Amino acid sequence: MSDSGPGHPVRRIGILGGGQLARMMALAGVPLGFHFDILDPAEDACAGAAGRLVRAGFDDADAAAELAGQVDVMTYDFENVPATTAGAAAGRVSFHPCVTALDACQDRLAEKNLLTRLGIPVPPFHAVDGRTDLLEAVDRFGYPCVLKTRRFGYDGKGQAVLRGPEDLEHAWQELGDHPLIAEAFVAFDAECSLIAVRARDGRTGFWPLSHNLHDAGMLVLSEACIAGGDLQAQAEDIGNRLIEHFDYVGVIAVEFFVTDGRLSVNEIAPRVHNSGHWTIDGAVTSQFENHLRAISGLPLGSTALDRPSVMFNWIGAMPDAGELLGLEGLHWHDYGKKARPGRKVGHATLVLPDEQQLGKQAQALAARLGGAWPDRWSRFSTARGRLAGD
Amino acid sequence: MSDSGPGHPVRRIGILGGGQLARMMALAGVPLGFHFDILDPAEDACAGAAGRLVRAGFDDADAAAELAGQVDVMTYDFENVPATTAGAAAGRVSFHPCVTALDACQDRLAEKNLLTRLGIPVPPFHAVDGRTDLLEAVDRFGYPCVLKTRRFGYDGKGQAVLRGPEDLEHAWQELGDHPLIAEAFVAFDAECSLIAVRARDGRTGFWPLSHNLHDAGMLVLSEACIAGGDLQAQAEDIGNRLIEHFDYVGVIAVEFFVTDGRLSVNEIAPRVHNSGHWTIDGAVTSQFENHLRAISGLPLGSTALDRPSVMFNWIGAMPDAGELLGLEGLHWHDYGKKARPGRKVGHATLVLPDEQQLGKQAQALAARLGGAWPDRWSRFSTARGRLAGD
Repeated sequence: MSDSGPGHPVRRIGILGGGQLARMMALAGVPLGFHFDILDPAEDACAGAAGRLVRAGFDDADAAAELAGQVDVMTYDFENVPATTAGAAAGRVSFHPCVTALDACQDRLAEKNLLTRLGIPVPPFHAVDGRTDLLEAVDRFGYPCVLKTRRFGYDGKGQAVLRGPEDLEHAWQELGDHPLIAEAFVAFDAECSLIAVRARDGRTGFWPLSHNLHDAGMLVLSEACIAGGDLQAQAEDIGNRLIEHFDYVGVIAVEFFVTDGRLSVNEIAPRVHNSGHWTIDGAVTSQFENHLRAISGLPLGSTALDRPSVMFNWIGAMPDAGELLGLEGLHWHDYGKKARPGRKVGHATLVLPDEQQLGKQAQALAARLGGAWPDRWSRFSTARGRLAGD
Repeated sequence: MSDSGPGHPVRRIGILGGGQLARMMALAGVPLGFHFDILDPAEDACAGAAGRLVRAGFDDADAAAELAGQVDVMTYDFENVPATTAGAAAGRVSFHPCVTALDACQDRLAEKNLLTRLGIPVPPFHAVDGRTDLLEAVDRFGYPCVLKTRRFGYDGKGQAVLRGPEDLEHAWQELGDHPLIAEAFVAFDAECSLIAVRARDGRTGFWPLSHNLHDAGMLVLSEACIAGGDLQAQAEDIGNRLIEHFDYVGVIAVEFFVTDGRLSVNEIAPRVHNSGHWTIDGAVTSQFENHLRAISGLPLGSTALDRPSVMFNWIGAMPDAGELLGLEGLHWHDYGKKARPGRKVGHATLVLPDEQQLGKQAQALAARLGGAWPDRWSRFSTARGRLAGD
């Protein structure tokens, strides 16, 4: 908030983590009058484009506490903030989403145990603390099943699909040093996610479900999805239970598998989420703006869909903006990050007045991009058909 | 542009002036991958929220030239950049809009002479270099008429309305030290403006006309306006003539009086414009994004209206965001500037799916703001009626 009026009391917002999520948060927050102080170990952290960078390691609890002392509210842009760092900041200033939610989402086993306690459907899982547990899990689930590290996994990292006994040894070599969890393989019809927000005053907002496609563990396509059946209602019921449990403030993302018209939770992220990026261009209020409104005590904006939207994730390197920006309805988001294989460096959202036009334009974009894109688009369209039929 | 792909060649953009126009330009440009270097004498220039500030006076041609040497293209956010400064920058790097356009718009007399030469209607005007000229002008136009400084006027500054012979002496005392221009008083039906853009490749784009209301010389309300009759066509014809004359690149704004269904030009601004701020939330592509696309050689985005939009200008101090952000369809733009009487410190745009809803919501907002707002809204609505009838 500027000095130009009575306004709301929050002016400075601290963010732990200076990646693209913090960058888009700051871009949404500057017009609200906020100043951003962003803690990140990297000198060139991309959120620095719209905030002041404070260079410190994420394990530097003192630096986090010092920053907390300079801001009115603190948040984070990734869920692997060490507990001591989050705790040090939360001890000094209003910290959202709460440390309890952050903790719960850092360990896949704790997360799944919590979901189960809350009566929220999750695929069958099995704690793996040694080879015996792994054999038990395989015995219980059969092949294929999935072995994952409990902590620090993202974008498909720290995971192995076990397709048969021959994969066991290799997976164990790769992951066996960490606490693990085995999960039954879900032959889902589609993947989707709910982006939800809760304000300080307890009001909630839910964007229309995102329909998502992952490729090699990374999100590649997301769209605002008016799902058939009662999927939206199922998702909002689950979202509400989580929000109430945590007395949550801010944006939360819940990723689902859809099987035979039923949702089960894959994972929770206590933050703004890649599958909600289409809300910048396609919703009345973006997930980033509403996250900031929520944590700063402002009223929430509408989470309604403005126009049908599809997001393409740019992974590894940016495509040529000069080639693509001429496409009608294309909105560009370059994160200002150096190219690197497997790194999320940007996205684009296609927004058009009607679904049919949008589908055609997205197909044309996929064709133009070439490579894996036409196949991804085709799989995505097929899954959308299954989702709409539910 | 980031280092993450082939992309477009422009990466760093220099801006002369770090006010709210530069701030909104930078906020629109960061997602396109641009970095901004912004020259301004003020330590706390509000564009610093999304770019690197270079502190220097606008008359410091050396600083401008040095900055020009560090960027790929240069632009400005106000038209009173001294010619020597603009020239120094333009001598080193691609500079848009061109210095010729900047020059032409710095002097009201030169501007009106040019418009006349181009066959573009302007209200009658008379150069005033001494008392004799002033008496001639009054004799020619009668009362009321308007006396303005030729240079450095903005937001109604440097102007006096002469309502009768008794105003002559006071106006002369106030303005007589400067080169002046007298203009016939235009009893207009409505005020509107055209925001136009031309890309490097010569392609042009025109947003729907903005319908505007000024109060005490300052813009207070603006709306995307689907004008009746051929007003849009008249405006685009005028815009095209100017764009062609200057071989213009970037966004240009032309302010009009509307009288009996005919346009005459009040003034030109060779830059993004306050009356185009509704395009951030209400058009497919904003004036800020298209200005950057134009000057950096990227394809233009669509200038189509996305949703009916009305902009409220916040002058002097920001209203309370906590009070107003709950209004459906309200988008907030706090410029991060200190409160000061007569200073533009922010704006809000109401965007709703249909005209009728929007009108009701805008009226409700005006009522809630109180003060001069209900009367402004009423005058604005009346003028809109006249505009639609044309």
